[in-house]
Amino acid sequence: MTNPTAAPEDHRHHVVIIGAGFGGLFATKALRRTPVRVTVIDRTNHHLFQPLLYQVATGILSEGQIAPATRDIFRNYPSTEIVLGEVLSVDPSAHSIEVLEFGETATVSYDSLIVAAGATTSYFDHDEYRTHASGMKSLDDALHLRGQIFGAFERAEAATDDEARLAFMTFVVVGGGPTGVEMAGQLKELSRRALRSNYRRIDPSSSRVLLVEGGDRLVPAMGERLSAVTERDMERLGVEVHLSALVTGMDETSVEITQRDGTTLAVSSATRIWAAGTRGAPLGATLATATGATLDRSGRIEVEPDCTIPGHPQIFVVGDLMALDQLPGVAEVAMQSGAHCARTIGRRLKGDEAPRPFVYRDLGTMAAVSRFRAVAKIGPLKVGGFLGWLLWLVVHVTFLTGFKNRFGALSRWVISFIGRGRYERALIGRWATGEDPHAG
Amino acid sequence: MTNPTAAPEDHRHHVVIIGAGFGGLFATKALRRTPVRVTVIDRTNHHLFQPLLYQVATGILSEGQIAPATRDIFRNYPSTEIVLGEVLSVDPSAHSIEVLEFGETATVSYDSLIVAAGATTSYFDHDEYRTHASGMKSLDDALHLRGQIFGAFERAEAATDDEARLAFMTFVVVGGGPTGVEMAGQLKELSRRALRSNYRRIDPSSSRVLLVEGGDRLVPAMGERLSAVTERDMERLGVEVHLSALVTGMDETSVEITQRDGTTLAVSSATRIWAAGTRGAPLGATLATATGATLDRSGRIEVEPDCTIPGHPQIFVVGDLMALDQLPGVAEVAMQSGAHCARTIGRRLKGDEAPRPFVYRDLGTMAAVSRFRAVAKIGPLKVGGFLGWLLWLVVHVTFLTGFKNRFGALSRWVISFIGRGRYERALIGRWATGEDPHAG
Repeated sequence: MTNPTAAPEDHRHHVVIIGAGFGGLFATKALRRTPVRVTVIDRTNHHLFQPLLYQVATGILSEGQIAPATRDIFRNYPSTEIVLGEVLSVDPSAHSIEVLEFGETATVSYDSLIVAAGATTSYFDHDEYRTHASGMKSLDDALHLRGQIFGAFERAEAATDDEARLAFMTFVVVGGGPTGVEMAGQLKELSRRALRSNYRRIDPSSSRVLLVEGGDRLVPAMGERLSAVTERDMERLGVEVHLSALVTGMDETSVEITQRDGTTLAVSSATRIWAAGTRGAPLGATLATATGATLDRSGRIEVEPDCTIPGHPQIFVVGDLMALDQLPGVAEVAMQSGAHCARTIGRRLKGDEAPRPFVYRDLGTMAAVSRFRAVAKIGPLKVGGFLGWLLWLVVHVTFLTGFKNRFGALSRWVISFIGRGRYERALIGRWATGEDPHAG
Repeated sequence: MTNPTAAPEDHRHHVVIIGAGFGGLFATKALRRTPVRVTVIDRTNHHLFQPLLYQVATGILSEGQIAPATRDIFRNYPSTEIVLGEVLSVDPSAHSIEVLEFGETATVSYDSLIVAAGATTSYFDHDEYRTHASGMKSLDDALHLRGQIFGAFERAEAATDDEARLAFMTFVVVGGGPTGVEMAGQLKELSRRALRSNYRRIDPSSSRVLLVEGGDRLVPAMGERLSAVTERDMERLGVEVHLSALVTGMDETSVEITQRDGTTLAVSSATRIWAAGTRGAPLGATLATATGATLDRSGRIEVEPDCTIPGHPQIFVVGDLMALDQLPGVAEVAMQSGAHCARTIGRRLKGDEAPRPFVYRDLGTMAAVSRFRAVAKIGPLKVGGFLGWLLWLVVHVTFLTGFKNRFGALSRWVISFIGRGRYERALIGRWATGEDPHAG
C-alpha cells in the first residue's frame, strides 16, 4: 500500500463518483486540477460510449473500441482511484457508502458524492418482455444482440420450414428515437451489403426490419422536418416504419403490434430490439429512500437547480439518473451536469458556497440513418443527408475517448461504409451451434 | 431454394469438408476451379487464425480480427456451401455423415470426404486440470483467458490480504512451445507496459510469470541455438523459466511444479494457461470406429501416405487430426495437406487414380518473444531478435486472411508495440463484478 491517495493520512476532500459513464467521466476530468482526491466506482471496468453500441451489435466495431478501460483513461490522474464494484447503500448521515467488490463489502467515506449511475432499459409495465427483447444499454446487451442477429441469419439458412425461416429473417426494433433509427438502418445495411453472397439458401437482403414507434414521428426531438426526412430515408432503405403503434404482446416467435385505430398486426420475428424506454438505475430508489428525495415516474431523482439532493448539499445526482427541468437523457446532459458538479465542489473548497443552477447548453442531437446519411440538429442548424452524416462523423470522432479509439473506429468505418466488410461477426460462447442460443 | 449447388439435380462430385481451420480453408481454396460442389461444415461460424489467439487473450486484437466469418471468406465461391453444425457420425458404406444443425439432425452424402476437424487441448491424464487451467484452442478459450487475466489484476487491486493478492498477480504458463513462449512474453509486456500507471494499490510490473516446460529446452523444434536465445530473451523479460519441470498438481489457488531432481515447488497462482499438449478432436475416435482406422497415442488418425484412411480412398484426414510421418501439428502441415487432398480429388476426376504421397515442405516455424523480438527458423535460416521479429511480422501479415484483417492487425500492432495501448480490455459477461469469475 504505497499509494498516497489511499493512505489514511490523506486529509484532502474526498469526492466519490458513482458511475464511469459520461457523467462520471466528465466530473472526474473537471476535477483534475482541483485539490481533492477522487474515487470512481463502477460495476464494469470500462467507460462505455453508448451512442455507438448499435455498431457493436451489428459487427462494425469491437467491444474495446467503444469501451476503453476506465483505469487507462485516468492513468495520469494520480489522485484518482478506480474501484470495480457495486454500490449497495448510501448512508447520508455517516457520509459513507457500502461497496461490494468481488464478494466483499467495504465502507467508503465521502466528503462529496456524485451519483452518476445512469439508466437501465425500461419495458414500461411489461417486464415479461425483457426475455423477448434485448435492451441497448450495456456491452453485454450489444454482444447478446450481435450473437442474436448474426445467429438469426445462420438459423434462417439452416431452417427447414418456411415459417421459421421467415421469423429468423424478421427484425423488430421498438422505439423511434435515435437508437432505434440507427439500429434499424444498420440492420438493413447489414442484410443488403455486408452479408451479400454469403448465403446459398437464403437471400439476406429479403429480410424485414420493422421500426415501431408509439408517437406519430421518428426522432421527435429533431423537429418536424427532420422527422419527415428520417422517415423518408428509413423507407427508402426498406425499413417498415410503424408510427402511432405500440407493441402489445410478445412471445418466443412473434410480436403483436397495435395501431392507433385499434387494429393489431401479428409479426413472426425471432429478433427484437428494445430501444423504447429507459428508467433510472436501481440505485436511485436506494438513494431516494436514504435521503428522502423524490423519484419521478421514470425512476430519476428530482434535484435542486444545482443538481444536489434537497437537504443534502454534499450529494449530487447527474446524467440519466437526474430529474431536472425535463432535460433529456442524453450524453450531453450527463457530460455537462457532471462537469457542473465538479466546478461546484471546486468553488466550495475556495469558500464560495453559493449554489449555482445547472444551465444546459443544448449542443444538438443526431442520428445516423445509413452509411453516408444522417440527420443532425445543432443549434438552429437542421440538416439531413450526406451533410448530416459528415457532421455525425466529426462529432463522433471528436467525442470518442482516446486517440486509438478514434483512429480505430475511423478505419472500421472506412471498411464498413466504403467497403462492405464487418469485422466482428464471430459467434462466441453459447451462440455456437449445439447450444440453444435462445436459452438463458 | 434458388441455389443451384443445393438443388437435388446437381450431380457434380460432392466434396464434404469437416472443419474450417487451416486444413479445411486451404482444401476449399484449392478446389475453387475444380468442377465439384463443396460443403464446408464447422461448429463455429468463423475460420480461426490460431497462432494469434494469445493476442486476443492479452487484449491486443479483437475476436473478429483473427476470426473472419467462414461464409464471408467464401462469398465468391458459388459452388461452396457453408454449414454451421456438428458432425455426429460418419457412415463410410453409405458415403454419408450425420450433422446436427441447431438441434436438428441432417444426413449429408459425400463423394469425397476431407476430415479437417483439428485438435483440442490435452491435459494428458489429468482431465481434472481442465477447470483450473484454460486451454488455447478456441476463441472462447481466448475470451475466457482475457477475462481471467484482466480480471486477475482487478482482483489483486481489490484484495485485502497479501496472499490472495500474490496469487492474483502470479501467472503460470504450462508448455514451452511457441504458444507458451508467446503467451508468457505478452503477459510480461502487458504488466510492464500496457497496465503502467493504471493501478493505485498494486504495481502490475511486479507480477510473476512462470513458464513451465517438461523438456530441457524451450521451442525445441527451432534447434539448440534458438532455444538458448529464446530462454535468454524470456529471462531478460522477467519470465521465470522452469525447464525439465512438470505440473504435478493444481487446485483453485495453487500449482505444484515438480523438478527433475524430484523437488517440488508450490506456487500460489489464480491464472493458469495450458499450452502443453493437444489431442485429435473427438470426431477422430468416431471416424476410427466407423472405418477401422488406427488412432495414435494423441488421438490422431493414422493415414496412408496420400492422407487417405486405409481401405477408404474417399476419406481424407488432414492437419492436426492426421498422423503421418510424425509431422507436427502446425498450421503449415494443415494448409499443405488440405491442398494436397484437393489436388488428389481434382486428379481423380480427370481419371488419374494413382495415389501420390503427401510431401511436406517445411517452411519453418517462429515465435514472438516480446515486442520487437522473435525467433524464427526458416529453412536453413535461424534468426532471433529484431530480425526474427520482422520475419514474424511479414509472415503473420501475409497469412492473416483478408485485407481488412491484415490492415486491422497491423494498426493494432502499431498501437500496442510502438504505443502502449491495448484495445480490448473490456470485461464482459460473467467477468463483471458481483458474479464470481471463477464460477462456471
